[in-house]
Formats: sequence, structure tokens, C-alpha cells
Amino acid sequence: MASPLDIEREEGLTLQPKFDASGLLTCVATDAATSEVLMVAHMNEDALRKTIESGEAWYFSRSRGALWRKGETSGQTQRVVELRMDCDQDAVWIRVEQVGAACHTGRKSCFYRKVENGDGGPRLVLVGADRLFDPKAVYKK
Amino acid sequence: MASPLDIEREEGLTLQPKFDASGLLTCVATDAATSEVLMVAHMNEDALRKTIESGEAWYFSRSRGALWRKGETSGQTQRVVELRMDCDQDAVWIRVEQVGAACHTGRKSCFYRKVENGDGGPRLVLVGADRLFDPKAVYKK
Repeated sequence: MASPLDIEREEGLTLQPKFDASGLLTCVATDAATSEVLMVAHMNEDALRKTIESGEAWYFSRSRGALWRKGETSGQTQRVVELRMDCDQDAVWIRVEQVGAACHTGRKSCFYRKVENGDGGPRLVLVGADRLFDPKAVYKK
Repeated sequence: MASPLDIEREEGLTLQPKFDASGLLTCVATDAATSEVLMVAHMNEDALRKTIESGEAWYFSRSRGALWRKGETSGQTQRVVELRMDCDQDAVWIRVEQVGAACHTGRKSCFYRKVENGDGGPRLVLVGADRLFDPKAVYKK
């Protein structure tokens, strides 16, 4: 049974993000021009606030434990055209103008492989996997 | 520094899903016809396998702690047109043919509110929020 607070969060017009136990929301970024899903990442409270205030995508990196402006190292920034909240306000969808490539591997989208069923079980098949930049050069790894 | 296992997971063609500490992947479902983001949900190993095998979307409900075929109560099923894995294989993107509405509130998409900046700070604004079904009637709450 939904509580009054849940109903207000779903039907109201107040921004009431529901961060998880780690203080994070899930964020899906799609390309505003092509509608392709570019990446899935996370935002903490600071990242969400900075994204709304600046119109540039900010995330929280779980592996590095740090707030992160998309493109601050790679130059592959994301200008936010629209930001939407989902029903229970634990997920964010941003439509962005992507400069270059969203994926750290140098591809436009992180989703460059699809699953196909074969005789030996499911396999991955490359799709749209051309690199737009060389990650070794960009990240100096 | 990326380990050899990380590189194989990112560049290889073997399905090696990277489930989180709760045994889950994040899944984004988009409408195959309109490219709209319909919902963000989670899949455990069983849900991913059943989705790949059946071509229908299965999820794992964190609130109910249960495997769940999308639409089993509401009839609002999702036929999977394509399933993609992201670079580090901890997120799935499915393009689906959505029967009716994806959101439990009766809307086509869970993302029926956008964030707008105003004088008093950010506010939510309804967008595409028409209900396609009455949740009280469908879920018998």
C-alpha cells in the first residue's frame, strides 16, 4: 500500500529525490538529437543540484568516490536539454547534447554491444562500436 | 588502471554481466517506436536469463524481493526488440514494444515530470502525464 508520502512523491510537483542507501540516484542520459541511450550513471545530491543549476551533466563516480563533471578530463561534455524525474523520484532521465563520445572507451554510447541468441547460448555482437577518440591518448593511461 | 578482466568485459564478446552487491543490474527500457525512456528497473541473473530466452521483459522487484514478469498483473507487457549491454556490463538497455503503459501510475512512461528552474528553486512540471489505465482498477488496491 502506498503511503501518503509515496503518493505525494509520485503525483506532486515538488522535487523530492529519493536517494538510495548510498545517497545516489540512477541517471540515464540519452542523445537529444538521436534519442540513443548514451550511458547510465549515478548522481548524488550535489551532482543533481549542480546539473540543474549549471545545465551541464555532473555525476558521482562510485569507483572513485568523487563528484565528477562529465567531460572534465576528456572534454566530452554533456549539455542538458531536459531533465526528467521518474514516478518515485529515484531515477533521472537527461536528454543531452553530447560533445564527441559519452563512453570512456571512446565510443559515442556505452551500449555498443547487443545480445544475440546462438547455438552455444547468448553472445555479444558489436553495433555502433566505432571509436570517436583514443582513450589512451585522452586519459593518458 | 583497468585489469585484464575489466578489459575483456569491455572489449570482448562474451556475456559477463557484472551484478552489484545485491545481485542486480540496472535496466533502462525505451519504446522501440518512439525512443522515449519508459522506465528504469533492475534485473537479477534469473530476470536477465528469462528476458533473453523469452523475449519478454522480466525484472527483479527490490521492494517485493521477487522476480516479476512485466505486465503479469497489469497486462502491460514488454516485448523485447533488442537488448544491449553497456561497457562494463552492469547496465542493460532494452528496446521494447510496450503494450499500453509502462508506469504503475497508468502513464505510458515513468518520466512524466520534468524539472524546471524557477524563482523559488527547481519545480516539477507535468509532461506526457495522461493516464492510459486506472491503477486502482488494474492493481485492485
